Amino acid sequence: MQTDFSTWTTSKLTHIEQVLSQTIPDQHTLPHKLHEAMRYSVLGGGKRVRALLCYASAELCNTEDAVADAGASAVELIHAYSLVHDDMPCMDDDDLRRGKPSCHKQYDDATALLVGDALQSLAFDVLSKPGLCKDPMQQIGMLSTLAKASGSYGMAGGQAIDLDSIGKPLTQQALEIMHARKTGALIEAATLLGASAGSREQITAIQTYARKIGLAFQVIDDILDVEADTQTLGKTAGKDAGSNKPTYVSILGLARAKELAHDLYEVAIAAIYPYGEGSLRLRELATYITQRAF
Amino acid sequence: MQTDFSTWTTSKLTHIEQVLSQTIPDQHTLPHKLHEAMRYSVLGGGKRVRALLCYASAELCNTEDAVADAGASAVELIHAYSLVHDDMPCMDDDDLRRGKPSCHKQYDDATALLVGDALQSLAFDVLSKPGLCKDPMQQIGMLSTLAKASGSYGMAGGQAIDLDSIGKPLTQQALEIMHARKTGALIEAATLLGASAGSREQITAIQTYARKIGLAFQVIDDILDVEADTQTLGKTAGKDAGSNKPTYVSILGLARAKELAHDLYEVAIAAIYPYGEGSLRLRELATYITQRAF
Repeated sequence: MQTDFSTWTTSKLTHIEQVLSQTIPDQHTLPHKLHEAMRYSVLGGGKRVRALLCYASAELCNTEDAVADAGASAVELIHAYSLVHDDMPCMDDDDLRRGKPSCHKQYDDATALLVGDALQSLAFDVLSKPGLCKDPMQQIGMLSTLAKASGSYGMAGGQAIDLDSIGKPLTQQALEIMHARKTGALIEAATLLGASAGSREQITAIQTYARKIGLAFQVIDDILDVEADTQTLGKTAGKDAGSNKPTYVSILGLARAKELAHDLYEVAIAAIYPYGEGSLRLRELATYITQRAF
Repeated sequence: MQTDFSTWTTSKLTHIEQVLSQTIPDQHTLPHKLHEAMRYSVLGGGKRVRALLCYASAELCNTEDAVADAGASAVELIHAYSLVHDDMPCMDDDDLRRGKPSCHKQYDDATALLVGDALQSLAFDVLSKPGLCKDPMQQIGMLSTLAKASGSYGMAGGQAIDLDSIGKPLTQQALEIMHARKTGALIEAATLLGASAGSREQITAIQTYARKIGLAFQVIDDILDVEADTQTLGKTAGKDAGSNKPTYVSILGLARAKELAHDLYEVAIAAIYPYGEGSLRLRELATYITQRAF
């Protein structure tokens, strides 16, 4: 008998917070301000969806705890760095993040730039710890997965496509390519890092799940951006519409965007359903991620 | 009978340029502008001191060519990303780099931010290529070396200390800590990546060499900053003095700064001298790096 989803989530959130806190150098270590700002930007907030996906995937594949911890913290560090850089004045220029001043507002632009840079290095540092995996080839695979998910064919590339798309009409297909990289790549990496110890079949099923959930996640973000108010989101709402960025809602309309999110959810669940009890947390997470909009 | 230094350098510079050109995605690959800006920022210029140190060190240790290529390109990608971010308005605000407009001037701030981010990911992608090293533990060690050299205990941390030091009086010791991270860490990583196949004794000798040369490199940069004009450097000269940053020249005076650079050179050479002909390129590089100021 497994614990309920809420208990599992609370336990994992407490745990990843501790792991991240131990991973990021103490603010009393030189350079003090940089380390303080790194901790400010990563700790004490966020839904940690990527970490939860990594842990859920690790449960299906019986991946060792230390490996799951490394995977979960690496993806959260990459995600946090991307938020710090995204919020900077030359990007989205957002003053608020997770309900508090964004890094460059709390500190300054130069510090925010270095915080993001150092968090990215730290993610690779975490995964390159000698002896992390019994099979070093598995560990190299994890590093390769994270590097590809972060770079110009992954998250940073998605950001670049997003920037270029402002004010331009995009097809749904072009929007999907953009989001597959911008958000989807790291969500997929999170589940794949958790699945490091899995069989080929398990990894393929999890990859399908991750791609559909990653896309659903973004569709729902677009829906929420229209529907939610600033307080609920903890960031400035309606910003994408205001800056004339194409979204699923602007292309499909609200009703069809919700249908799409639901369809993606169904396909994701179907991919991992054969794994029964082992896939419980991934199924619950799929519901958790998509129910925000239903 | 080995070729002379100039022939060796020319050959290696041509080679690393080809390797980097093949490593960075083509500008006709989506996202076009990002890839074009990445190529703009990395290719066609620079002294490639870090790549040359990696190759020279590989010659001493008989490290395989493919491994040396991966190490050399990874450090050059990290170096290039750091220059792109350093030049941004919120950091050094430099319009000129390697004699042409810096990345954010040629493109825009958002693109420069993403170029740096994606180049860092690419460096780890290069080193995490499955099968790069016969011994996967050696490859994980290379990834760990690069991650630590780039992060808050390495290059990004050195930048942060540098930022905090503007306008403050620094002791020579504090200046050395700053430079050991800001410039030294990546120079040391470059030589260590080249030394991947080396014995413990070789690696220790090379590490001593790298630390002394890394420091000498920075002392000489400070000397050149005072002595050289904008045209010779390809960047705005006298900038550090103008922004009231502490330098070796401002702390020690010009004559003692030159003495220090010379002493560091002597110790570096002595560390690798026992390896005779195998250390030829490292010795020549030490001369090349330091002779700029004598």
